[in-house]
Amino acid sequence: MSEHIVSSFDTDLDTLRSKIAEMGGIAEKMLGDATLALVRRDAALAQTIIAADARLDALQRDIEERAILTIARRQPMAVDLREVVSAIRVAGDLERIGDLAKNTAKRVVAISGELQPPKIVGGVQHMSDLVQAQLKDVLDAYAQRDDQRAMDVWQRDERIDALYTSIFRELLTYMMEDPRNITFCTHLLFLAKNIERIGDHTTNVAETIHYLVTGVALSVERPKGDKSSFTTTEAVDK
Amino acid sequence: MSEHIVSSFDTDLDTLRSKIAEMGGIAEKMLGDATLALVRRDAALAQTIIAADARLDALQRDIEERAILTIARRQPMAVDLREVVSAIRVAGDLERIGDLAKNTAKRVVAISGELQPPKIVGGVQHMSDLVQAQLKDVLDAYAQRDDQRAMDVWQRDERIDALYTSIFRELLTYMMEDPRNITFCTHLLFLAKNIERIGDHTTNVAETIHYLVTGVALSVERPKGDKSSFTTTEAVDK
Repeated sequence: MSEHIVSSFDTDLDTLRSKIAEMGGIAEKMLGDATLALVRRDAALAQTIIAADARLDALQRDIEERAILTIARRQPMAVDLREVVSAIRVAGDLERIGDLAKNTAKRVVAISGELQPPKIVGGVQHMSDLVQAQLKDVLDAYAQRDDQRAMDVWQRDERIDALYTSIFRELLTYMMEDPRNITFCTHLLFLAKNIERIGDHTTNVAETIHYLVTGVALSVERPKGDKSSFTTTEAVDK
Repeated sequence: MSEHIVSSFDTDLDTLRSKIAEMGGIAEKMLGDATLALVRRDAALAQTIIAADARLDALQRDIEERAILTIARRQPMAVDLREVVSAIRVAGDLERIGDLAKNTAKRVVAISGELQPPKIVGGVQHMSDLVQAQLKDVLDAYAQRDDQRAMDVWQRDERIDALYTSIFRELLTYMMEDPRNITFCTHLLFLAKNIERIGDHTTNVAETIHYLVTGVALSVERPKGDKSSFTTTEAVDK
């Protein structure tokens, strides 16, 4: 490549990186605010989260379009190509995290008038704190191209899955104890599932970082703390 | 482009199309079998669905890699570029449909020993029949580049959302009537949600077809039959 072309490519990459950083900031804030809105039963805050999602969607489309044009125009190879492909993937995961935070906020609105067994929200809040830490770490790992840090995030998701399983069980117990808890706990089940799925997207980003830095796709199955899909008294999914 | 290059591009596209057709066939079968496994309480059939998902994942990775290489090597423009980008998107949605069908199958295994209010499975089966028809139609629309047919699928998803909302309500009622139904109905809630989300992915594919055929992204919001995220007695999501 001529120097002119190389420098155009670098400019393209810088733009992609700064847009992904913006997406990361928005996604982190949406998840943090969704948890706050749940704990405080704050429907107004929940509405601001729902409104914020449009920006994330627009950024993702923009990143995808720019990345495709960059591939077509600059024909990057090896690590340069991985940079651009990784940008598309990370933007896709951040967009899905935004959708899940938005849905979490909608459920906060839905349950704002319901009876609430107070203890149970604590477990969901704790799980959300862990997922927020995962999201922050994986965004830092992406900014620094830090494979080790990304692999730490990838490993730690197991704890979140295990916590989700215990929340699932606890919520079933509350429902069985008192039918008046059923509507609230059902929303909370889906809400907890959303947060657990946000955790899964942070591990997707970690896998993308590994591929970006090393050039090798992760082929091993991630350890799963949530074995519950196959058991009746435990939680489910994966 | 020279004729040689043009014909290489066409070969690339043919390969992408045939791999997407294979993915579509697998995804359709997984969804159909998952529903059959639910209705028949057939845990062995459910296990075959879980095993089938790996092939779908491998095909998606293969399609994505080939598409990116095609963009870098052939530098396609306009409709040619849209063809390749659309292949990446459709493969992504089909991979997610496979994940959701796999999760549905895992829940069938989980509830295979539980009490079952028989009527309730009928509603989920009906919703799954509608989603299977949507998936078949959208795959045909993709194969034929048929925007009108894709837009029909896109419009019809509203009915599925509405059906999901009514199933959600019905399941809550069963749970309130008898606590022994809670575990079964909770799994069925997530199972129904999976199928509703498969419906959402068929509308994503429809949007991709519209973009592919017309060159214009759909900017209007899809009509939503599931208003339930904001109400307590109804179902949730979006």
